[in-house]
Amino acid sequence: MISIILSIGDELVLGQTVDTNSAWLSAQLAAMGCDVAAHATVPDDQTSIESAIQAAAGRSDLLIVSGGLGPTADDLTRQALAAVLGRPLEINAAWLENLEAFFAQRRRPMPQSNRVQAMIPAGARILENTAGTAPGIDADFHPPGAKPCRIFAIPGVPREMKLMFERQIAPHIAAAGRGAVILSRTLHTFGLGESSVAQRLEELMDRRRNPSVGTTVSDGQVSLRINARFEDRARAQTELDSTTELCRRALGDLIFGQDDQTLPGVIGDLLLASQFTVATAESCTGGLLAKMITDIPGSSRYFQRGWITYSNAAKGELLGVPAELLAQHGAVSEPVAIAMADGARQRGGATFALSITGIAGPDGGSPQKPVGTVCIGIAGANPTVATTYNFPGDRESIRDRSAKMALTLLRYQILGKSAPF
Amino acid sequence: MISIILSIGDELVLGQTVDTNSAWLSAQLAAMGCDVAAHATVPDDQTSIESAIQAAAGRSDLLIVSGGLGPTADDLTRQALAAVLGRPLEINAAWLENLEAFFAQRRRPMPQSNRVQAMIPAGARILENTAGTAPGIDADFHPPGAKPCRIFAIPGVPREMKLMFERQIAPHIAAAGRGAVILSRTLHTFGLGESSVAQRLEELMDRRRNPSVGTTVSDGQVSLRINARFEDRARAQTELDSTTELCRRALGDLIFGQDDQTLPGVIGDLLLASQFTVATAESCTGGLLAKMITDIPGSSRYFQRGWITYSNAAKGELLGVPAELLAQHGAVSEPVAIAMADGARQRGGATFALSITGIAGPDGGSPQKPVGTVCIGIAGANPTVATTYNFPGDRESIRDRSAKMALTLLRYQILGKSAPF
Repeated sequence: MISIILSIGDELVLGQTVDTNSAWLSAQLAAMGCDVAAHATVPDDQTSIESAIQAAAGRSDLLIVSGGLGPTADDLTRQALAAVLGRPLEINAAWLENLEAFFAQRRRPMPQSNRVQAMIPAGARILENTAGTAPGIDADFHPPGAKPCRIFAIPGVPREMKLMFERQIAPHIAAAGRGAVILSRTLHTFGLGESSVAQRLEELMDRRRNPSVGTTVSDGQVSLRINARFEDRARAQTELDSTTELCRRALGDLIFGQDDQTLPGVIGDLLLASQFTVATAESCTGGLLAKMITDIPGSSRYFQRGWITYSNAAKGELLGVPAELLAQHGAVSEPVAIAMADGARQRGGATFALSITGIAGPDGGSPQKPVGTVCIGIAGANPTVATTYNFPGDRESIRDRSAKMALTLLRYQILGKSAPF
Repeated sequence: MISIILSIGDELVLGQTVDTNSAWLSAQLAAMGCDVAAHATVPDDQTSIESAIQAAAGRSDLLIVSGGLGPTADDLTRQALAAVLGRPLEINAAWLENLEAFFAQRRRPMPQSNRVQAMIPAGARILENTAGTAPGIDADFHPPGAKPCRIFAIPGVPREMKLMFERQIAPHIAAAGRGAVILSRTLHTFGLGESSVAQRLEELMDRRRNPSVGTTVSDGQVSLRINARFEDRARAQTELDSTTELCRRALGDLIFGQDDQTLPGVIGDLLLASQFTVATAESCTGGLLAKMITDIPGSSRYFQRGWITYSNAAKGELLGVPAELLAQHGAVSEPVAIAMADGARQRGGATFALSITGIAGPDGGSPQKPVGTVCIGIAGANPTVATTYNFPGDRESIRDRSAKMALTLLRYQILGKSAPF
């Protein structure tokens, strides 16, 4: 069953509102094994709505149109739908009674404009709205020369839309029950680029594979989406689990978490489980690393102190970095990162300390140490070490990647593994 | 000029990701007087992308395609675009050099798969990507029997997409600018809610007014968008300036900046102009305040040190907050905020010090001090003071509002005014 979702609204094409309805509807449909072939959005303009319904219905079995069912002059979905179906709008007596009762109960006269909400194209059916005045419309459309298409027009108000979908549309789709179950899982990595991750996954990323594996990148984090699509739910679950296992084997410790897990959250869990604590000493990230750690509720159990030492004097006075070290190697150097981490660990009384010193730009780079050069130190059980990285992008990305890499190094340290970057 | 926005991605039609790019792009285009006729979204499938490009290009002057430009097998936008244009993909030597330099700088071999990112359809132009490896593509398409359409294909990663639009696409659109001129300005405030700001603006917010004044809220920052739409550019400019002046009169010092100015940037400019410096002492914000200050390039000229004192012991040892004060008033109290600010100012050798101690939640609240209770201190020329706020929302909002309020208090302090909140 191929479905298309059409959203109606000036506020959407003007960019005043982000369309969250389409994503919600798509997720529901995907979970029921119903392919969503496309989303489309058009403004509150009858001709545009008509063309969009016509085009979408011609290539789908199921069309969900959301929005444009309100009582005002810019609500034109029912008129457009009637025009496409080639049928007149007729008053639905039962819904008109409903509407009148709704207003009577509120002791308000029904505005004349609401009357249109009881009108649906001849031959179509009402979808009851338990949360508002606009009913939905359920219509069959047989475009000449194409397959028949079932059209559901529903309100754009998310609460009304969701209730109507769950109670009145989902049962129809389940009953039509062709198609498969899609189960999904997401695995998260940090440290390697998208193409390096893809290289390790090799034929797992074959487009024709089922379960399929795709990659997405967000702020340097490369995630794998695994989608298993099968007729049978149990089979889908087994296949999802087995492909997950293959991805885990291919990527090993690069995977730090799955689904809604975050890097700071996973670090927090590891620290809690081992009863370790961490302190931070930051130069170029200016507090971002500590901010990420403390994004997690309850982080006070493993994080108590951090220093932001933006100047050389601060590195010396607050963390005990020797002036000679700064003079000899410069503030952005592995020896200074090591001294910062050692200083923070001693003064912080923590199991581990992370330090970051680098050039976030846009100024301050040199041929030897270009913008993006960042030294990250980690002090803990083993001898304190520091590594130099070259992060791409602008100031914001460089700072973001630096803090995430520091967390990633801590993760490998706690796991007792050496990081591959 | 009619434009259409096409988004590519399995994650979008599967409902795993909400498409925020289309709304952002639409808002940019609308502000430039460019009507967006539709949004469309299709999966990572070459045939679907080709049909969608073909259909959209046939009825628009400008088509923006976002997503599908990555290096992996499921990135198919460039292939689809080449097929629609009927031209082969060719290596762009300059971008290939860029890519090779990018990997060489990181001392990593370039994965073979990245090579495809240097390929664009013959006759098309590269849009440089300053934040990633995928360049955009700028192509002219003349569909038979339809008007020519300019197609911009850009990455789906929001940061890369936005930079590329602002720097390389917006100027083209502005240059093409037919029809009425729309000149816009945005004024930013922080500290009062949207309805309080709207109340002060009174009839300036009348929907029929030209220039129009609208409010938007983003992370607690209430901004006014002023749009002046006139046939004549000089007239639009005069009207824009005069409405701006009326808004400034209505809101006074609440307005901290305009257009692309940010709160940390404005604070930085004020500190630089007065040759003042600032230090930070943070508890619940865990580094976020210092992170915001150091978001600004060159902030080392006015910010040298910050402390994150998440535990009581850290507040005592690092900032000299007396144990009795903590015992008597609790860590979240105005006396402790004052002691933290004083400690940071003395140890930081700065003109001003800001301190934040509060309950960011979700746990740790009490009837006397519910989640959202935050004390902010400021030490400087005058006697050190602290104020208690009750911020709404979740952990993330409470931390965000706390840091922004601290910056706002510093702004009023430097201006020599008393803050109205």
